[in-house]
Amino acid sequence: MKLMHISDLHIGKKLFETSMLEDQRYILNRILDLLDDERSDAVLIAGDVYDRANPTADAMELLDEFLNALAQCGVCTMIISGNHDSPERLAYARRFLENRNIHISPVYNGHIEPIALSDAYGEVCFWLMPYVHPDSVGGFFAKKTIRNAQEAAEAVIGEMQVDTARRNVIVSHQFIVGGTSCDSERRNIGTLENVDASLYDAFDYVALGHLHRPQDVGRANGTMRYCGTPLVYSRSELDTEKSVTMVKLGEKGEVSTYTVPL
Amino acid sequence: MKLMHISDLHIGKKLFETSMLEDQRYILNRILDLLDDERSDAVLIAGDVYDRANPTADAMELLDEFLNALAQCGVCTMIISGNHDSPERLAYARRFLENRNIHISPVYNGHIEPIALSDAYGEVCFWLMPYVHPDSVGGFFAKKTIRNAQEAAEAVIGEMQVDTARRNVIVSHQFIVGGTSCDSERRNIGTLENVDASLYDAFDYVALGHLHRPQDVGRANGTMRYCGTPLVYSRSELDTEKSVTMVKLGEKGEVSTYTVPL
Repeated sequence: MKLMHISDLHIGKKLFETSMLEDQRYILNRILDLLDDERSDAVLIAGDVYDRANPTADAMELLDEFLNALAQCGVCTMIISGNHDSPERLAYARRFLENRNIHISPVYNGHIEPIALSDAYGEVCFWLMPYVHPDSVGGFFAKKTIRNAQEAAEAVIGEMQVDTARRNVIVSHQFIVGGTSCDSERRNIGTLENVDASLYDAFDYVALGHLHRPQDVGRANGTMRYCGTPLVYSRSELDTEKSVTMVKLGEKGEVSTYTVPL
Repeated sequence: MKLMHISDLHIGKKLFETSMLEDQRYILNRILDLLDDERSDAVLIAGDVYDRANPTADAMELLDEFLNALAQCGVCTMIISGNHDSPERLAYARRFLENRNIHISPVYNGHIEPIALSDAYGEVCFWLMPYVHPDSVGGFFAKKTIRNAQEAAEAVIGEMQVDTARRNVIVSHQFIVGGTSCDSERRNIGTLENVDASLYDAFDYVALGHLHRPQDVGRANGTMRYCGTPLVYSRSELDTEKSVTMVKLGEKGEVSTYTVPL
């Protein structure tokens, strides 16, 4: 099975009061071309779909256009909300999108149900974990103390019934300890935001969003990765080559990645 | 064929800084019950779905819930944008909704394609005309002078290829001359907003939204009608009984309406 991992589209972002929408339309079309070239079975979008919780009308039009093109491609699309997204707004019409094989993380309700895709080696479970913080999940775990992102993520991942005999992929949007941040991410990244890589041990591949610089984190074998943004959103990203990450899943334990430049 | 005609839901409206969302959820559920009781084939929503061009996240959640319930009912739903709606935001995901028989007017692009439904007497064409004003449509009619709502509506209706040998229903959100307004509509209703009833002569039934008081306008036989809001949104509406309008279409020329209290 072949997956494309992208994140941090930040649709609707303005740089120095200038709309980037046309650049974003260009890069989304480029992503669609690559999906086709790479014969990807699924695309994972690891949060910060929009730049703002309250997206502009033209940002919503561009996402709608992209989602329609994805539906036409025939790939399975899986999307989570990031810290920039409103989980409610991003989830609007999600049950209608599901009919066309586009899955968006619902507003967190205490439980995550995986999405299963199959290949010759059996099923792969995909876990769409939206960006979590104590306020968004604390209410669902009354018996636990949830004071920071680590404890929030621990509760949310702990609740999942992960069958480690099968293959599991998680899509997540958190600050994993050891990642290198850029100027265009939110400034409130600090210890309260840190999440230990080991929390994700049950997953064969961890498709991360949040950090804008493409990078492996937490594991030596490259199976836990920030794919980075598709466009440069700050001066500190000027030296990075923008790319998509492609993930090949073979039988249990066989995961490899490579990047394709954008 | 039996239609339910509603309008001006104003989802997300606040009265004196108080959210009406729970009242709106109640009344939308009541509408769903009536759809079932009345065995309606379709529901027409004649604009001002939201109260604001930029709806709140919880308003979007409530509309999503309502649309899912409509899809489950199996009725055909047809929705236009009103002056309070952002046509772009309301149209988000419209092609996905179409698969479940929910039709939302697209952003006006110079042409309106009717939606056809059939019964024992043949086809009925439904024309979803979003709220139009000179700025939103002028650019599509370069050879015409479009200075006011009358000229905008004239151009937009003039462009439709209406076959008057068949049955035609239009859904529209304009201020038709002769209508009685309420305090909760926008204050800019004046001569520039007026549209002559005669513009709609080609249509067997005209499902209007915009005015909050239920009323027939423009025709003696009750086939051109504002159904009114489902909830009281201003003091000046306190003396009106809120209702939905039911429309029965028989063979060409046979149209009757009745109201069901909410």
